[in-house]
Amino acid sequence: MSQATNQSWGGRFSEPTDAFVARFTASVTFDQRLARQDIQGSIAHATMLARVDVLTDDERDAIINGLNEIQGEIERGEFNWSVPLEDVHMNIEARLTDKIGITGKKLHTGRSRNDQVATDIRLFMRDEIDVIEVELKRLREGMIELADREADTIMPGFTHLQTAQPVTFGHHILAWQEMLSRDHERLLDCRKRVNVMPLGAAALAGTTYPIDRHVTAELLGFDRPAENSLDAVSDRDFAIEFTSFASILLMHLSRMSEELVLWTSAQFNFIDLPDRFCTGSSIMPQKKNPDVPELVRGKTGRVYGHLMALLTLMKSQPLAYNKDNQEDKEPLFDAVDTVRDCLKAFADMVPAIEPKKTSMYEAARRGFSTATDLADYLVRKGVAFRDAHEIVGHSVAYGLKTEKDLSEMSLDELKQFSDIIEQDVFEVLTLEGSVAARNHIGGTAPNQVRAAAQRARDALSALKAGAA
Amino acid sequence: MSQATNQSWGGRFSEPTDAFVARFTASVTFDQRLARQDIQGSIAHATMLARVDVLTDDERDAIINGLNEIQGEIERGEFNWSVPLEDVHMNIEARLTDKIGITGKKLHTGRSRNDQVATDIRLFMRDEIDVIEVELKRLREGMIELADREADTIMPGFTHLQTAQPVTFGHHILAWQEMLSRDHERLLDCRKRVNVMPLGAAALAGTTYPIDRHVTAELLGFDRPAENSLDAVSDRDFAIEFTSFASILLMHLSRMSEELVLWTSAQFNFIDLPDRFCTGSSIMPQKKNPDVPELVRGKTGRVYGHLMALLTLMKSQPLAYNKDNQEDKEPLFDAVDTVRDCLKAFADMVPAIEPKKTSMYEAARRGFSTATDLADYLVRKGVAFRDAHEIVGHSVAYGLKTEKDLSEMSLDELKQFSDIIEQDVFEVLTLEGSVAARNHIGGTAPNQVRAAAQRARDALSALKAGAA
Amino acid sequence: MSQATNQSWGGRFSEPTDAFVARFTASVTFDQRLARQDIQGSIAHATMLARVDVLTDDERDAIINGLNEIQGEIERGEFNWSVPLEDVHMNIEARLTDKIGITGKKLHTGRSRNDQVATDIRLFMRDEIDVIEVELKRLREGMIELADREADTIMPGFTHLQTAQPVTFGHHILAWQEMLSRDHERLLDCRKRVNVMPLGAAALAGTTYPIDRHVTAELLGFDRPAENSLDAVSDRDFAIEFTSFASILLMHLSRMSEELVLWTSAQFNFIDLPDRFCTGSSIMPQKKNPDVPELVRGKTGRVYGHLMALLTLMKSQPLAYNKDNQEDKEPLFDAVDTVRDCLKAFADMVPAIEPKKTSMYEAARRGFSTATDLADYLVRKGVAFRDAHEIVGHSVAYGLKTEKDLSEMSLDELKQFSDIIEQDVFEVLTLEGSVAARNHIGGTAPNQVRAAAQRARDALSALKAGAA
Amino acid sequence: MSQATNQSWGGRFSEPTDAFVARFTASVTFDQRLARQDIQGSIAHATMLARVDVLTDDERDAIINGLNEIQGEIERGEFNWSVPLEDVHMNIEARLTDKIGITGKKLHTGRSRNDQVATDIRLFMRDEIDVIEVELKRLREGMIELADREADTIMPGFTHLQTAQPVTFGHHILAWQEMLSRDHERLLDCRKRVNVMPLGAAALAGTTYPIDRHVTAELLGFDRPAENSLDAVSDRDFAIEFTSFASILLMHLSRMSEELVLWTSAQFNFIDLPDRFCTGSSIMPQKKNPDVPELVRGKTGRVYGHLMALLTLMKSQPLAYNKDNQEDKEPLFDAVDTVRDCLKAFADMVPAIEPKKTSMYEAARRGFSTATDLADYLVRKGVAFRDAHEIVGHSVAYGLKTEKDLSEMSLDELKQFSDIIEQDVFEVLTLEGSVAARNHIGGTAPNQVRAAAQRARDALSALKAGAA
Repeated sequence: MSQATNQSWGGRFSEPTDAFVARFTASVTFDQRLARQDIQGSIAHATMLARVDVLTDDERDAIINGLNEIQGEIERGEFNWSVPLEDVHMNIEARLTDKIGITGKKLHTGRSRNDQVATDIRLFMRDEIDVIEVELKRLREGMIELADREADTIMPGFTHLQTAQPVTFGHHILAWQEMLSRDHERLLDCRKRVNVMPLGAAALAGTTYPIDRHVTAELLGFDRPAENSLDAVSDRDFAIEFTSFASILLMHLSRMSEELVLWTSAQFNFIDLPDRFCTGSSIMPQKKNPDVPELVRGKTGRVYGHLMALLTLMKSQPLAYNKDNQEDKEPLFDAVDTVRDCLKAFADMVPAIEPKKTSMYEAARRGFSTATDLADYLVRKGVAFRDAHEIVGHSVAYGLKTEKDLSEMSLDELKQFSDIIEQDVFEVLTLEGSVAARNHIGGTAPNQVRAAAQRARDALSALKAGAA
Repeated sequence: MSQATNQSWGGRFSEPTDAFVARFTASVTFDQRLARQDIQGSIAHATMLARVDVLTDDERDAIINGLNEIQGEIERGEFNWSVPLEDVHMNIEARLTDKIGITGKKLHTGRSRNDQVATDIRLFMRDEIDVIEVELKRLREGMIELADREADTIMPGFTHLQTAQPVTFGHHILAWQEMLSRDHERLLDCRKRVNVMPLGAAALAGTTYPIDRHVTAELLGFDRPAENSLDAVSDRDFAIEFTSFASILLMHLSRMSEELVLWTSAQFNFIDLPDRFCTGSSIMPQKKNPDVPELVRGKTGRVYGHLMALLTLMKSQPLAYNKDNQEDKEPLFDAVDTVRDCLKAFADMVPAIEPKKTSMYEAARRGFSTATDLADYLVRKGVAFRDAHEIVGHSVAYGLKTEKDLSEMSLDELKQFSDIIEQDVFEVLTLEGSVAARNHIGGTAPNQVRAAAQRARDALSALKAGAA
Repeated sequence: MSQATNQSWGGRFSEPTDAFVARFTASVTFDQRLARQDIQGSIAHATMLARVDVLTDDERDAIINGLNEIQGEIERGEFNWSVPLEDVHMNIEARLTDKIGITGKKLHTGRSRNDQVATDIRLFMRDEIDVIEVELKRLREGMIELADREADTIMPGFTHLQTAQPVTFGHHILAWQEMLSRDHERLLDCRKRVNVMPLGAAALAGTTYPIDRHVTAELLGFDRPAENSLDAVSDRDFAIEFTSFASILLMHLSRMSEELVLWTSAQFNFIDLPDRFCTGSSIMPQKKNPDVPELVRGKTGRVYGHLMALLTLMKSQPLAYNKDNQEDKEPLFDAVDTVRDCLKAFADMVPAIEPKKTSMYEAARRGFSTATDLADYLVRKGVAFRDAHEIVGHSVAYGLKTEKDLSEMSLDELKQFSDIIEQDVFEVLTLEGSVAARNHIGGTAPNQVRAAAQRARDALSALKAGAA
Repeated sequence: MSQATNQSWGGRFSEPTDAFVARFTASVTFDQRLARQDIQGSIAHATMLARVDVLTDDERDAIINGLNEIQGEIERGEFNWSVPLEDVHMNIEARLTDKIGITGKKLHTGRSRNDQVATDIRLFMRDEIDVIEVELKRLREGMIELADREADTIMPGFTHLQTAQPVTFGHHILAWQEMLSRDHERLLDCRKRVNVMPLGAAALAGTTYPIDRHVTAELLGFDRPAENSLDAVSDRDFAIEFTSFASILLMHLSRMSEELVLWTSAQFNFIDLPDRFCTGSSIMPQKKNPDVPELVRGKTGRVYGHLMALLTLMKSQPLAYNKDNQEDKEPLFDAVDTVRDCLKAFADMVPAIEPKKTSMYEAARRGFSTATDLADYLVRKGVAFRDAHEIVGHSVAYGLKTEKDLSEMSLDELKQFSDIIEQDVFEVLTLEGSVAARNHIGGTAPNQVRAAAQRARDALSALKAGAA
């Protein structure tokens, strides 16, 4: 027997695999991460095979016991992973055969590595999605509570990074929470499509053994067996859909990170991040850098990259399984880890954000942030909106020249631009008046913010109840 | 009044916009495509403003009549789009004011272009998703019927583009259909998140007018108003989610296209595409090129590119609206058009695919496609799977040397590799026997294919009923 | 003759192209942009064909005159583009045959649309690269002059958007210029690979006519004919390389844009942009938005997207030409337009940037920006760097508590942290002293900035001289 | 002293870094790969510092000896990497101080981790580029020799995967080689821009020590010091440019892989790949899968993804260094490894490709591959090209109906379509005549292929001589 027949497919081959090729094409260095799911799937498969009398109960038990022992070896770091055995599947099967002899070879009856790996990844993704969901909920909760706490805290709202109108800090944080609520929906939508079982598709066409896929699906907690064997072994939509979810989530986190970085700058000075989320400089002793948000922002690229990698991978692949698909795992694993870590970092950090209220308030007072309120005031007095806009535009031009905010001008100064303006204008030019006046669903008025926080809290609780 | 004040925001400005800058920053050349939705949104906004007494009923009627006239002008190609007026919104509003005077200026009360454009795009996307869904259903139906028709047609199934096991052509087409069924789900999941109303968010913080967002949402058929004004004007998740759906769909179409191109090659010769879906060569008179699948395959890149464009666009943008967001439209419009056209091309073409059954059957007979059946035969006679695999491997090596398929070897020749093989082996080595034996849910047995087609048909009908 | 034979390849076909397919596969709506280059290439081709006696001189002259007339028709907007004629090539050829009769049909001798379109795009790209280079030089010159002018203007340098050390504004602008100098190199490297001639590759294998490709190459200003016909018709590297150049350039412009947006915010208040590069708000009368940098930043996504589109397009395409390649043009055209417009916008805007020197200086005074200078001072007095770093760290912690910058502490206060500190410390704590001390190539000292500006000016002049 | 001061920047901080944050922000798990370059850079830095009298010669020697010992420890796997020490730089510096005491702390004088890491990566990239170039040359040489050997081997040339015209296998392989020659140029262009030294930029602004950057640049083999300190620490163009090179290269390899996969299919059957480059199936004993080309094709996605990751990473980053940049290493490292391994796999495999000449020849005989030759024949007899094209089109339609290739029709049959056709037509309808007739630079005639191989060989030798 040549070395080639160490491998599971050697009979047809006349020379062993080139040593570099063996290393180049092996996946065990990364797919060993699927060991737990591989064993879980094998146990269910063996159980089903016994149920349909392809295995005896004794064979089944020997297999399951052997696999459980192997699981222990792996967890204790005692398992000896072998690159010549190519992948996680052959490593575990070879070890099983070492342990229980020829019966171990029967485990592969009625399946192929093609459906086996597709099943393993889906089990893995389902597990990871559930872990990710816990962190996502924790972050959303942290935001809702922060928003509720800061429902009255006034800060400048920006468009084009120019001061636009005053908003409340709570309202701003709820905007973040709203982004995450959509991510949460997308994650659960993705989970539905993950939780479908390829096992039984065998290499590509199904198997001649009298398997019962409903049994295996139930044992593994899948919603249903996949409908088509060719599709089942070649479908990687769920991997792309997950990285697409992850890309949008990281995009959201990058936006929040950008704001956190801005807000901790000396120029904005809107918030403080506790030292434990920051690092310093090896050369500049005064530095306290917002490393966590910066790093999360930087990790956006890696997740976008994984999405593009997977889309490119699948482009133009004919059915059914091709070796190309081995490249699905590393981007997916890294996307999972990145999402989980970034959410954890944010879930720890967000509740610890300390708004510098005075600084925010002063910033909102500058920059003519109540100019829209003045325009609305004029409209209420009968001026058409577009004309009111122009009147206020001229007042602002005057303010820029004289370095006065609107609220700092005298009534006479304001009247230069429109006779209609009276003493009551000064009420609408306060920040508190401005935010309180935006009093409708979705608006920044403090009572609306508190009501929105309560709705978000309820929605999240309902979700948690539903998932339980 | 300077030229600058032609624009809706000129009062504060001391010099007119640079001519090149005006052209560079204008969006009307492409956003005029939103005119219908812009008018639809404005009519609902005016109706609501009258309901809450911000407009009189006469003002409302004047506005609505004016807008309807403008809609007619646009449809008849009589509308004069102006680049100095920047965008679709200002073009329509300026024309309205031309028509009905100062009342036209009141339409913009309680809204901003920020929430207006966000509303327009969502209305547009909802319309386009519904058109796309029609084509997607038509394509799925065409596939289901083709699959049912060809449930018995045998062809080689491939993995690694090497002959693997015989499958039926119907089974293969249902694999395609299965891909599209997931796309369909994703499209409907996306539609849920599209159908939320930003209007009322105004510039970023809500408005001081006593608007009733539930009224506007109902008038426009939105499921609900957006929960947070800052998020509402800056959220473009739905655009990314749609292009993500589109990318996965085009990936699927690229896989089908790749197979169609392979199958129409002289080497495969599996199918014929009617001339009306092909083009020729200006220099090689014999050529009949599968242009439609090639072009669809090529269009995959453009849609992936749009996804990447939108993800990049949104990365690190601080809240709320930034001018960057103007760049959301062109990729989205092109993604919509590409998806719709590619689906239409496929929906027309797929039912016209003519399988060359003899050619497919002969191809399946070559390439040792029943080797797995031989291995399964040995296992049923008591050989462990891995050992059976090796026995068949040696038979194949022999077949390669002697240029004989397994079914062409004599019993004596087969017995060289295992004594257990008997005369009954020849039954399992036929193509018909091979496919029929894969007789479980998801398997390629003709009766399973027909049952799967029926389930797919029912699922699609249920969906259509549900959507009605 | 059926309608099908209107097309250049109809003889083999038994039914006309489907009307939707005809529109779907036609490229004339966008490739008409190549008309000038198509005619230029045809004139050179006809000239060469006459040189090798495939055409008579009269035929050549008739063809050239006809093409020149067509060029005039196109320029005057009188040319009637026809979608059934598919593309720019067939439109022009059909018009030529209308004009000069059967001789027009001889123009296509010894070439194919495959090599023709590849030649057209390369001619087009060469032209556009030269236009782009002019704008790029103009922008670099504007930056060099601005940097020279502001070589002494002190601002805070940032890392992690935290105040790090004082730098000069000129130094900062030269950092931008340095980015562009690499882009410039990449553009010229790309041009080398663009300027190679596919013509003569014919459909894929060359032609049986006695063509002289060196003649055509010389007539068209190409450096050399492409070496391999299969490669020549299928190579689109130059398109990818250009969009890669464009992506890096836009990335640079996005970084500059980000800074311009930050600097024009009320919080930074470092610069003013003239009104002519900004726009306002339809609802907030006080707004002056930095639209140009925002829009350029937004356009980054579109160019990244085009790069990804072209990479995806070419992935896994077998040789030689496939219809997929028709999809190369739109992303490339849009990348060219975007690059040219963004460079023009920046080249106009950058010289008009007005630094607010007092505001920059005050910002640099805050934030312990000379902490590194204090550490260096200690090292010069014999303290190991890492220890000095820690001493200054404690001084900064004290400064944060007492709200004093380092330069505002008394000698006694400073001595708390190290006995080594003496009166001379206050010299190193000034901003002017700090920047002047970084006096080596690449450092921010004003004399280094001026020297660097001069080197940049010389390098650019040398480049211009070389290109002439 | 708190735990926080274990870190190089702790003096200013009042609480230690959160344990999860410490792990999340640490880079030592991956940047330890830069250890050799980090030490190389430190030795040069210390040498320069002694040259300018910032260090004594004894201090320099102690540092260099210590670093060399550390290098040994790392190579022997004895070095204890510590995550709390964050990165490769601090790990090595801490170990140095352990070894040589306080002098070790002086090494960091006049530099920062910002310029240090930028220098390390560039040294690393230069090393890796040189390794990659060796594999690239080896692959090009293998192709040139294969092409020369197979300059007469006839195969069908394809466009649209439809048989187009006969070409030679050598010509086809030279098309591949031509792609790689452009990659080679791009690699060397990239190397120019890699080989520039950031060291001396310090944190962002340069340093107050009297450093001599020309000395360090010379010691490290850099072409020149970077011109601007702000740019030097934040520039990652070279990483993007390398991954752009890598993306185009992998795109090329994906195209070759696609063809190898096609050619090894039973349907094409054009080549054989030795068993050592293939693997089998765990379930289908007959399978011999072209794993190496499939896997390389699959790896295209990962490299495209890394390009997108890096472009996204840098988008909109303000100057100078931000923590985001830590994310540059993993994509770059993986791109380097992927490129090197894929090139090695191809360089080993390509010379071992065995064309199945009979099979190729027979395929070229089918599919009307000499139809263009017939058209050209007619043109030479005076028919206008477009008319000749149509005549041949009708002949092909007849051939399809009668299942005869053009060369199999009788003269009478051919004369149905044009009276001009005579007995001499059969010479142009042979495959040998067809390829020999494409006898111009870039054409597929065997003598042109051999001449092209010689030119390629010479160009490669010239390059190797130049690099020496």
